[in-house]
Amino acid sequence: MEFDSFFAEALDGLREAGNYRVFADLERHAGQFPRATRFREDGTSHDVTVWCSNDYLGMGQHPDVVRAMKEAIDRCGAGAGGTRNISGTNHSHVALEQELADLHGKESALIFTSGYVSNWAALGTLAAKIPGCIVYSDALNHASMIEGIRHSRAERRVWKHNSPEDLDRLMSADDPSRPKLVAFESVYSMDGDIAPIAEICDVAAKHGALTYLDEVHAVGLYGPRGGGIAEREGLMHRLDVIEGTLGKAFGVMGGYITGSRQLCDFVRSFASGFIFTTALPPALAAGATAAIRHLKASPVERQQHQERVARVRRLLDRRGIPHMDNPSHIVPVMVGNAAKCKWISDILLETYGIYVQPINYPTVPKGTERLRITPTPFHSDADIDHLVGALNDLWSHCALARAVA
Amino acid sequence: MEFDSFFAEALDGLREAGNYRVFADLERHAGQFPRATRFREDGTSHDVTVWCSNDYLGMGQHPDVVRAMKEAIDRCGAGAGGTRNISGTNHSHVALEQELADLHGKESALIFTSGYVSNWAALGTLAAKIPGCIVYSDALNHASMIEGIRHSRAERRVWKHNSPEDLDRLMSADDPSRPKLVAFESVYSMDGDIAPIAEICDVAAKHGALTYLDEVHAVGLYGPRGGGIAEREGLMHRLDVIEGTLGKAFGVMGGYITGSRQLCDFVRSFASGFIFTTALPPALAAGATAAIRHLKASPVERQQHQERVARVRRLLDRRGIPHMDNPSHIVPVMVGNAAKCKWISDILLETYGIYVQPINYPTVPKGTERLRITPTPFHSDADIDHLVGALNDLWSHCALARAVA
Ligand SMILES: Cc1ncc(COP(=O)(O)O)c(C=O)c1O
Ligand SMILES: Cc1ncc(COP(=O)(O)O)c(C=O)c1O
Repeated sequence: MEFDSFFAEALDGLREAGNYRVFADLERHAGQFPRATRFREDGTSHDVTVWCSNDYLGMGQHPDVVRAMKEAIDRCGAGAGGTRNISGTNHSHVALEQELADLHGKESALIFTSGYVSNWAALGTLAAKIPGCIVYSDALNHASMIEGIRHSRAERRVWKHNSPEDLDRLMSADDPSRPKLVAFESVYSMDGDIAPIAEICDVAAKHGALTYLDEVHAVGLYGPRGGGIAEREGLMHRLDVIEGTLGKAFGVMGGYITGSRQLCDFVRSFASGFIFTTALPPALAAGATAAIRHLKASPVERQQHQERVARVRRLLDRRGIPHMDNPSHIVPVMVGNAAKCKWISDILLETYGIYVQPINYPTVPKGTERLRITPTPFHSDADIDHLVGALNDLWSHCALARAVA
Repeated sequence: MEFDSFFAEALDGLREAGNYRVFADLERHAGQFPRATRFREDGTSHDVTVWCSNDYLGMGQHPDVVRAMKEAIDRCGAGAGGTRNISGTNHSHVALEQELADLHGKESALIFTSGYVSNWAALGTLAAKIPGCIVYSDALNHASMIEGIRHSRAERRVWKHNSPEDLDRLMSADDPSRPKLVAFESVYSMDGDIAPIAEICDVAAKHGALTYLDEVHAVGLYGPRGGGIAEREGLMHRLDVIEGTLGKAFGVMGGYITGSRQLCDFVRSFASGFIFTTALPPALAAGATAAIRHLKASPVERQQHQERVARVRRLLDRRGIPHMDNPSHIVPVMVGNAAKCKWISDILLETYGIYVQPINYPTVPKGTERLRITPTPFHSDADIDHLVGALNDLWSHCALARAVA
């Protein structure tokens, strides 16, 4: 087989479908977020405002986080130097796990190198090792959960997105004596809708199932201490596992699960993706701990965040720019066509200095291509005016449908 | 099902078999590597010398690496703020990928959040997407490769460890028209033996197979520029993929593949574990780049490393402490019993201030339990005398078998 021509053909297929991804080469500027420098392929560069970061609160530039990371580097060096078991556990990992357990009101926590790995390894291990386990997975679950479930080779049922009724229907059809696990998210990252957690927990409880909630797009952002949607709704005790990331609202990188002491110890002891990999650098653990501590005590960032989101929505509405209605901080401006979505994004970048990556298949279904806008506390009124003005120009320019008020 | 009691029972099983892992809680000290503080569960602490780190050259405390990381944090903040596609590509990722491609003499490189994820995602994607692909996997391949191959659901043949003959036998039995991929490592981390790369490439070439080499325990350590065993032996051009980590000899964290432009672009475009996860913090990319650049130009660390390894072996031999003979930097002192291995390790830690984690099942086969000793350029003559003296005491104390000279 001519491997390289096979690869080239597959890539051409993506290009033809408008799904070939070109990464924007950025340099973020600490202290000036959401400003960044973008480097073009020809070597030139220009200033842009980032409108699609998942550093939702700008914690990646928070003085406490920056200081904690640099101090940890000075104190302990660059990396952890080993897997958690073989010389890689650092005091700052232990502290971070205690902080996370406390954040979610759980006995224990376990950190992973990313949110992706935490879902993949935890679901992969639980569903594989619990004998006869059936996994019930929300239809819009993230790739990392899907891969984890797939990896477990457990039987899987996919329930209609955010539908406790459909979940109940599927669970009722199965043998009551089989162990069951219900896996879902709180805030879905592409549509920004929020799961009916209480109702889902009711159904799970009725069938004696473990509950596994991904709060990746909610931790730091919701709840009095930033514990996520389950904290806001007083439901943390009803979730057996709350999973999260250190790479979005907490501004650093890494992932985790929280749960009972036994459950976390079980995953710690059996998950290949936890065991056989170098631990997080102490500096990342220290930075994440600083971010979590700050956001536990300070509601200011969350309030400003929500206020900015509301303002963006209001101004979009005023201009009739169609965006998906949802109760979260994610503002999906709908385009509905891969090529057009990429074209708009290119013009925003080159002409207006506005960086919003087009979101195309396979991240979202074909026909629902969008600009996923994520306002932060650091976007000013002028930034918002500039964004909405630019979108308004483009909507006129390419005669895109307006939302009817 | 009573989930927590199920977990507890499984954990008790590990305890009874002597395979329950207790992580040593350390604080490494930049500038004083391999010294660290170890925290006991009761809150007290003491000083230890780490003898089992994979920060093989102590690059985790190298001034260039530390400086590059802190500068990147000051310049760009803590995290990347998004996936590579959605605002997470930073200029330092691009620079690191160029550095890595150059290190291995390849057109392109692609970085991942860890070496584990790079193997899992790259093998998982290649073997799944190349139609009809058969994967030939060395019997002792690392968990991350095994999981990647398993994930692909491609047909798999396991060949006898380091045996080109067995590989040829298996490949010859298969349909010549099927695409094939041969996956193996250069330095095997637990036994420290080295693959006959040229012979394996000969067999692969005879059958028209892609070659995939994991150099995780060799990059930075072997070859004139630290390109690994394949560089040392002038074989880099014969490998389609060279995979490595940023978390061992380079002292930071992260993983990568290098290969042709088309191959890397293919993995970049189709691998779930690459696409759907937050990118490495710019500081990690900058630190790794600094380590790679330094080790490309400086052979001193590699020479000192080999010299220290030889000294440890020589002194162990003098005392008749049995260690596995191998041509690498890894010194496995064989104990052959899980409980005894843990007991020796505990006494070394508490009585001698020497930290060497016991390596038990499932990391190594039962009956081959060992202390895996990794000397670094920073272990002094006195450190080595202290280590070998302590082992000698313990070997006498528990009447362990001596090696016959
Ligand atoms: C719902 C969800 N879960 C998990 C992840 C993975 O988290 P991380 O970026 O920390 O790997 C993401 C996105 O990246 C996500 O959107
Ligand atoms: C052979 C081999 N490949 C890959 C890995 C994973 O690399 P990382 O620690 O960067 O995840 C390891 C060990 O951790 C390893 O021993």
